[in-house]
Amino acid sequence: MNVRIRQSVRELKPYTPGEQTRDPSLLKLNTNENPYPPSPGVQGLLSTLAVEDLSRYPDPLSTELRGFLSELHACKPENVIVGNGSDELLLLCLRAFVERRGTINYFDPSYSLYAVLAAIEDVAAIPVPLGEDFQWVVPPLTNTSLFFLTNPNSPTSILYPSDEIVRFCGSFNGVVVIDEAYVEFADTHCMHLAKGLPNVIVTRTLSKAYSLAGIRLGYAVGPADLISALYKIKDSYNVSRLTQEVGLAALRDQEYLHKITHAICSTRERIADELVTRGYTVFPSQTNFLWIQSPRLPAGDLYRYLREQKILVRHFPGKRTGDYVRVSIGNDAEMDRFLAYAP
Amino acid sequence: MNVRIRQSVRELKPYTPGEQTRDPSLLKLNTNENPYPPSPGVQGLLSTLAVEDLSRYPDPLSTELRGFLSELHACKPENVIVGNGSDELLLLCLRAFVERRGTINYFDPSYSLYAVLAAIEDVAAIPVPLGEDFQWVVPPLTNTSLFFLTNPNSPTSILYPSDEIVRFCGSFNGVVVIDEAYVEFADTHCMHLAKGLPNVIVTRTLSKAYSLAGIRLGYAVGPADLISALYKIKDSYNVSRLTQEVGLAALRDQEYLHKITHAICSTRERIADELVTRGYTVFPSQTNFLWIQSPRLPAGDLYRYLREQKILVRHFPGKRTGDYVRVSIGNDAEMDRFLAYAP
Repeated sequence: MNVRIRQSVRELKPYTPGEQTRDPSLLKLNTNENPYPPSPGVQGLLSTLAVEDLSRYPDPLSTELRGFLSELHACKPENVIVGNGSDELLLLCLRAFVERRGTINYFDPSYSLYAVLAAIEDVAAIPVPLGEDFQWVVPPLTNTSLFFLTNPNSPTSILYPSDEIVRFCGSFNGVVVIDEAYVEFADTHCMHLAKGLPNVIVTRTLSKAYSLAGIRLGYAVGPADLISALYKIKDSYNVSRLTQEVGLAALRDQEYLHKITHAICSTRERIADELVTRGYTVFPSQTNFLWIQSPRLPAGDLYRYLREQKILVRHFPGKRTGDYVRVSIGNDAEMDRFLAYAP
Repeated sequence: MNVRIRQSVRELKPYTPGEQTRDPSLLKLNTNENPYPPSPGVQGLLSTLAVEDLSRYPDPLSTELRGFLSELHACKPENVIVGNGSDELLLLCLRAFVERRGTINYFDPSYSLYAVLAAIEDVAAIPVPLGEDFQWVVPPLTNTSLFFLTNPNSPTSILYPSDEIVRFCGSFNGVVVIDEAYVEFADTHCMHLAKGLPNVIVTRTLSKAYSLAGIRLGYAVGPADLISALYKIKDSYNVSRLTQEVGLAALRDQEYLHKITHAICSTRERIADELVTRGYTVFPSQTNFLWIQSPRLPAGDLYRYLREQKILVRHFPGKRTGDYVRVSIGNDAEMDRFLAYAP
């Protein structure tokens, strides 16, 4: 034990990302990546990139990207910040809006990173248990500084009712960060709340729908005073030149975005229907993954069985999550392979 | 004033990066960027990159990059961590090694980011004034958790005596982070201390000598237990695929690195000699910039005069730094343009 390391860090149980295998024989349906390539604009951009510009620091304000995002979401550039993945923005929110010894809330189960970030920052993490079948419950009103609200939720794939969210945000004293990592696969979103309420920030990512998990780009939209606080504490050059340029090329191609998200949603519905026919429990997904339970195999066994078949899905051991597995939606051929082995 | 924002953040005077102009008519000698393009290997890599791989998350451990760096520095992969620029690693060190209400030290003047990071983290920042002419002084022994030691120093360009650093690290109880952002332009370095002492971490960057400020890549070397603490709290996917690949291509080309750093050092000596001839005060630089004082113009006026001539240098107003300007070393033609206007 090295006493030079902070006690909270010594005692920390770190966040465990999904397995990032390098084995090409494995069908990777475990971290909700997109089976389609990024927009053709990205390829075009990389092959004509002026490499000598890489010697210069990136624009610390990501001006072009912010400008485009503010047009896309009909707000002002001051309402937008971009980050090195939306994970960076989640941490910035925690560091900007929660005093030491403060408290955060989030639903249980949801994104397991929130509790880890809180532990690192010496902030109390008070999860709010979801209702039966992982449905929305009205969080009790407390003096919490920040609520991380994953919508649609992961790993459950469920979208919460919009009117419930509006009512909750209006009654909550602190900041609500609505983590919309999967929202491009859903029927509704909450961006209007980030533009209309003084305490709501919506985060988005290019990792899922835009098929760019590899470049690390996320963004947040919210009231200018909150966004400005995030700017004050972020690393000056948090988003690289390559990421800014590649991200912009992908964002500009909204037509391609709609095409591939539509294809994924169609595949999702087909696979969900087939699994239901086979007796699986399948939650109504508004994401690019399914949250399922086999009628024949306990979830841990299902995970291991599929892995033996070279299919990697995600199992989250634990009280409420341990009975299910999360399966990312691949392309049709990949999902047929999944179906061929799903017991 | 929005009370949802943490008090320390509301009161924060944020770090000000050097001006990142988009005006191509300006000669940019203000942020110590490299005038030469990155290794030709980078161009080759980008034009053959498999764009579809960008849909996948990057390797959270940057395994290949760490492997290469551990060979380069004759240590083990467990002794290496890579970050989204070395700024990210400096913040991780503060978050990992300093308890809330703890204290950090650094020399004054040195990198002005340290004090800002401390203010965000509610950590006391106690600067240690450098000696006359910005020379090394033995820091008083205190109960400080972390010492940020910039060597060679910026903005002063001075390299401290190695034996003094060894003695200091051996006597210091906390962690010493030796920030070697400019060390490839210097005669000596302290990497052996990161490999031999239990409390020393050395940080490096690809922004200066490798001419890759635009990709955001830094790394740190140190004892495995300290490095492992940084891993526990970093964002899982802190370094993008593009940055990992481009960085590796550049690191592999050590011959090119030596060629361009040698060229920059030669130019630096030529310009320093000429400025001395003109009566300037020029500190002995072991970096890719000069720290100078004109015999004819106060530093603020020199900065403004050069800016009117479309030459951007850096002036740090303040008690000890305000009398000097910092001039990054460009290529020979750029520095001749600088000399043509330097009064």
